[in-house]
Amino acid sequence: MSPGALDGLVEALRRLPGVGPKSAMRMAYHLLQHDRDGARLLAQTLETAMSAVRHCQRCNTFTEDEICATCRDPERDAALLCVVETAADQAAIERTGSYRGLYFVLQGKLSPLDGIGPHDIGLSRLYARAGEEGVREVILATNFTAEGEATAHVLSETLKSRGVVVTRLARGVPAGSELEYVDLGTIAHALVDRR
Amino acid sequence: MSPGALDGLVEALRRLPGVGPKSAMRMAYHLLQHDRDGARLLAQTLETAMSAVRHCQRCNTFTEDEICATCRDPERDAALLCVVETAADQAAIERTGSYRGLYFVLQGKLSPLDGIGPHDIGLSRLYARAGEEGVREVILATNFTAEGEATAHVLSETLKSRGVVVTRLARGVPAGSELEYVDLGTIAHALVDRR
Ligand SMILES: [Zn+2]
Ligand SMILES: [Zn+2]
Repeated sequence: MSPGALDGLVEALRRLPGVGPKSAMRMAYHLLQHDRDGARLLAQTLETAMSAVRHCQRCNTFTEDEICATCRDPERDAALLCVVETAADQAAIERTGSYRGLYFVLQGKLSPLDGIGPHDIGLSRLYARAGEEGVREVILATNFTAEGEATAHVLSETLKSRGVVVTRLARGVPAGSELEYVDLGTIAHALVDRR
Repeated sequence: MSPGALDGLVEALRRLPGVGPKSAMRMAYHLLQHDRDGARLLAQTLETAMSAVRHCQRCNTFTEDEICATCRDPERDAALLCVVETAADQAAIERTGSYRGLYFVLQGKLSPLDGIGPHDIGLSRLYARAGEEGVREVILATNFTAEGEATAHVLSETLKSRGVVVTRLARGVPAGSELEYVDLGTIAHALVDRR
């Protein structure tokens, strides 16, 4: 009843975040029964994205170029550098339309309990980037979770000791929440009130 | 910020059932950041499944063979034929471990409002199959939704007029629910109490 190729597909679908055994099976059946074209399209876009998409050499976000379109945009304010945990968080801030500076995307957040230290999330590259001429202010927009706050604290201490002006998104963002799920108005407000 | 290959992947992920724009983006970012091997595995298993998995010539379920393992199993009781709407429903019944007959998987359910008629869900093939020598009883296990009940009604009338013994899963299954999500005990009980 469950042949090898179908089992293999169900197992692979479970690698997607938020997909358990039941939804993986539903997805596999749906594709086989109703959307084989969609399945082939997904296979092809996965291959393409995995080989074409890399990290911007400057800000670390996902891009198909050496340097991403945001970093190359002469209209952006190069004096502002906003530090986020993930490209998804960057996308959330971009959707507010209220920030015109540049970004630096960390590789995650400090999590000593999981053995994730400063090196693992690319802090030394951020320090170098923040020390470049023209950067006037670093805005810390890590999540308002325990780990995000700890990351912001470490960044703030280190950058201030190097003479960089550091601000933090205002606490309009509800504590314990992740930026990606916060409504745009709250993020916009927190950007204005940054401290 | 959102390059072509990434956009294309997000769009393709939305073809999966239950995946909206936000979760598609989360999935794409997750694969790019943390699980490129998983993404390549998914691409490859999609390709394999779409080319290898087809419908059993006898019962319509998914298989890599001409005739599926269930239909070929001499231990199964060929006198019983259980009609389900989908392969997922068949899998749910199999998990109860309380049914040892054979199956016929419809291509969905009758839905006149959506223009889905008897031909679209393969009823004529079922009538032929149910009329084969050796079939003693057809158990209708379509969902207990309005459409599933309507399908069961049509099947029951037609099969009875051809002299086939027709039963329906007992109404232990809560009305309005889909078999796939019903606990195994309830399905097992409903199988025993079929009427
Ligand atoms: Zn960049
Ligand atoms: Zn079969």
